[in-house]
Amino acid sequence: MAAATPSLLILHPRLSLFAATLRPISLIHHQFSLQSPNPSRLCALFSHSKHHYSSISPLATATPLSADNSNVIETPRAGRSGSVSSPPHQVADYAQKIDVNPPKGTRDFPPEEMRLRNWLFDNFKEVSRLFGFEEVDYPVLESEALYIRKAGEEIRDQLYCFEDRGNRRVALRPELTPSLARLVIQKGKSVPLPIKWFAVGQCWRYERMTRGRRREHYQWNMDIIGVPHVTGEAELISSIVTFFKRIGITEKDVGFKISSRKVLQEVLGFYSVPEPLFAKACIIIDKMGKIPMEEIKKELKSIELSNEAIEDLLQVLSIKSLTELEEKLGGAGEAVSELKQLFSLAENFGYSDWIQFDASVVRGLAYYTGVVFEGFDREGKLRAICGGGRYDRLLSTFGGDDHPACGFGFGDAVIIELLKERGLLPELPLEVENIVCALDPNLQGAAARVASVLRGKGQCVDLVLENKPLKWVFKRAARINARRLILVGSAEWERGMVSVKILGTGEQYEVDVGELE
Amino acid sequence: MAAATPSLLILHPRLSLFAATLRPISLIHHQFSLQSPNPSRLCALFSHSKHHYSSISPLATATPLSADNSNVIETPRAGRSGSVSSPPHQVADYAQKIDVNPPKGTRDFPPEEMRLRNWLFDNFKEVSRLFGFEEVDYPVLESEALYIRKAGEEIRDQLYCFEDRGNRRVALRPELTPSLARLVIQKGKSVPLPIKWFAVGQCWRYERMTRGRRREHYQWNMDIIGVPHVTGEAELISSIVTFFKRIGITEKDVGFKISSRKVLQEVLGFYSVPEPLFAKACIIIDKMGKIPMEEIKKELKSIELSNEAIEDLLQVLSIKSLTELEEKLGGAGEAVSELKQLFSLAENFGYSDWIQFDASVVRGLAYYTGVVFEGFDREGKLRAICGGGRYDRLLSTFGGDDHPACGFGFGDAVIIELLKERGLLPELPLEVENIVCALDPNLQGAAARVASVLRGKGQCVDLVLENKPLKWVFKRAARINARRLILVGSAEWERGMVSVKILGTGEQYEVDVGELE
Repeated sequence: MAAATPSLLILHPRLSLFAATLRPISLIHHQFSLQSPNPSRLCALFSHSKHHYSSISPLATATPLSADNSNVIETPRAGRSGSVSSPPHQVADYAQKIDVNPPKGTRDFPPEEMRLRNWLFDNFKEVSRLFGFEEVDYPVLESEALYIRKAGEEIRDQLYCFEDRGNRRVALRPELTPSLARLVIQKGKSVPLPIKWFAVGQCWRYERMTRGRRREHYQWNMDIIGVPHVTGEAELISSIVTFFKRIGITEKDVGFKISSRKVLQEVLGFYSVPEPLFAKACIIIDKMGKIPMEEIKKELKSIELSNEAIEDLLQVLSIKSLTELEEKLGGAGEAVSELKQLFSLAENFGYSDWIQFDASVVRGLAYYTGVVFEGFDREGKLRAICGGGRYDRLLSTFGGDDHPACGFGFGDAVIIELLKERGLLPELPLEVENIVCALDPNLQGAAARVASVLRGKGQCVDLVLENKPLKWVFKRAARINARRLILVGSAEWERGMVSVKILGTGEQYEVDVGELE
Repeated sequence: MAAATPSLLILHPRLSLFAATLRPISLIHHQFSLQSPNPSRLCALFSHSKHHYSSISPLATATPLSADNSNVIETPRAGRSGSVSSPPHQVADYAQKIDVNPPKGTRDFPPEEMRLRNWLFDNFKEVSRLFGFEEVDYPVLESEALYIRKAGEEIRDQLYCFEDRGNRRVALRPELTPSLARLVIQKGKSVPLPIKWFAVGQCWRYERMTRGRRREHYQWNMDIIGVPHVTGEAELISSIVTFFKRIGITEKDVGFKISSRKVLQEVLGFYSVPEPLFAKACIIIDKMGKIPMEEIKKELKSIELSNEAIEDLLQVLSIKSLTELEEKLGGAGEAVSELKQLFSLAENFGYSDWIQFDASVVRGLAYYTGVVFEGFDREGKLRAICGGGRYDRLLSTFGGDDHPACGFGFGDAVIIELLKERGLLPELPLEVENIVCALDPNLQGAAARVASVLRGKGQCVDLVLENKPLKWVFKRAARINARRLILVGSAEWERGMVSVKILGTGEQYEVDVGELE
């Protein structure tokens, strides 16, 4: 008889109008091709890169090398948008092997990866609760308008945006903070300040370039709305340190570089650089170490900073001690005084050994206004583990009333790489306490009854649903790390009894079904 | 100083080519409009409907009435695709109040909703673990090819699909089963059968019509791959019953209607209806009760079923007892024998009172091949609570080797409506055990130290991060349902002590910080 009629979309290679764009263009196109069910893989085009999202995490079943199934040349139509103008796709009438990999840059979570993800997320959540934060979430799909900022951020350039079937501009969220801001404005005065919220959510980005990077990651966020003092930032860093300690990471493994955007603000203020250029300058400075210094200078010149201002700025950015900073800026400004308070609080929280002042830290998001910080691995092999700061002016950019605010984002990729590097990945085997098996097909109902009794008492039970030889059952019991094997045989069952075998010791006994615990 | 430059996307109304389509066309367009910051709300255009996704769940902060901010007439461009052909949007230079609601048909989860969601999901997960199932997940964004089936399913018509910036056809997953099938094929022989996996994931759909329905929901899935017997289906229904019992739902509240697609198969086989029409006939029959019977007959005729076959089919579909079914079809076929086995197993599992045979149940997914079931509320007010069945042929439609398989999907919307109806929604207040407060701004560091000591001992602590009057602190303590208030005052602190106030009793004492537990 017929099940669902097998059918499959077949995309045809097609050339389309080339829209002029300054962005990099991918030459490779994901394509289901009838002609090339086992296509050659274009490994050479992929390379690992140090970046926010990871392609080589053990948490990931990322398949950057296998998602491109044919090398049709792609000519993008529009500079920055998901687009379609072709007629509805054609549908084939026969079964065709689909690409069994998840879409390029995304991950499946088979059981072993899911256990690791749950372990990581449970630690995020448990720490957040220790700090009295409440969990929230927002739609993974948001209005594109939430993310339209003009400061030249990478996160904005890589927005995974498109137009939906109702012609609304939407985006898969690249970060959680704008959604938080939206919800805070929406809630208005109904939520008393300070708000302390956390979230663990998937974030997306889209790059045209095929650098083997992932297009999604999960991010742990903690945010405090309504606290103007650096006690907020100090509390946030304390929570991250608490998390690190829980999972076995020490101050020998990671540290935090801390600075304040107010440092740059004071320097740029001295040269009368107009306010609207401030965020742009920060985004340019954030590229230091990623692109050549000459490029940085060129970009700073392009926003009309004088040579003198640029040289002074770069000199300040090289400062690595608070004392030196105070000598340079004087002790009167907020930058120095807030940073000193923060370092003093760190002593009380007990994480002084984890932090250091570093003026070069500015972070790549446009909206930060005060203290900024990032977690880094001390071996210098990995990119930033987490980052955050103060963003006191974000709400008003959305038309809301401003409230002082700070928060951080902590991705799921780099931390897993670090744990792997340090040999700290936890062992998380599948563990199902009991396996229940009927010794006769007629006793399948009896076995179901036994399983129900145990489950009713809170015991996890793998019920063998088929008639299988004992050898098979023992093999399965070993695979699921069962502690007890419960066999339902007709002689015992007639007496209301079952056989119990403790798999660790080999001990075996009969027990009344009602007395199973 | 400048934070991020405030800026906002402004969409301009525009007319575009109209692509012929038989689908309903939305006349309303979500639009950020400079002219109408407080537009009139078009309530009359929305109505609640009984459907798979809900708009009126207490779990939802859905805002169906407020997402449409202006009544610009929309003329859709393409029949079924997210589309864009306009030049990059314009960016304004000034702050503009954004729509603070989540995108139409989506939800935020502020803390109180998140606690309810976590409570629900924890129950899904705990039951799945009791049954020995392993958790998995897949990307929320999948290749559109996974969902291209031709049987006329609603789920297919409402695919939230679009073309990404790399011209790949992708879709926000409408269901989890195709991803499961993809991953099972990918894993191949590396995972021993039977596979017992569960997932709780967000699913999406897109409708043009603005009926106030949601566009996303979360779905709990449990699937068994590799078991050909109805023991599989019996185990799945047992897990759902276990879930209902845990959350206080009884057999007086809900029941399961159970049938088998093999019933229809036997009837259609008698009339020599060709196999490829089977899934289509099932999808048409699933609309019974939703559209007029005359429409059903017309659609069945359109796939060339004879009048005689249609009448016979409709007569069989009205059967509500297994005995009557056996009289009609004879006892030799698989349909009757499997259903009888299932009802016998149900007795052993202890859920006979929950289930009933009903031949009219066929379910709306094309890929089911055998037993199908759905959970319903006995008052008949709500649409199906959950549904599932056997899908032995799905893997081969993706080019994999077939394995016998069965599973179910259980959404987060209807169950919450039901719990609300029955007054069974749990009370889930925020509870932070301790609140720690410095009585003097100079003691903020000391308070941080006290909070750290408590957190180090596993205690949840809300640390007051500002200098606030005691009245404010007590109010906050009440809001977070704190059990203890710990006050750090200078006189005590000099002696290494803090004041502890037990908020339930008013009891107050001093304690050495090191002895705080």
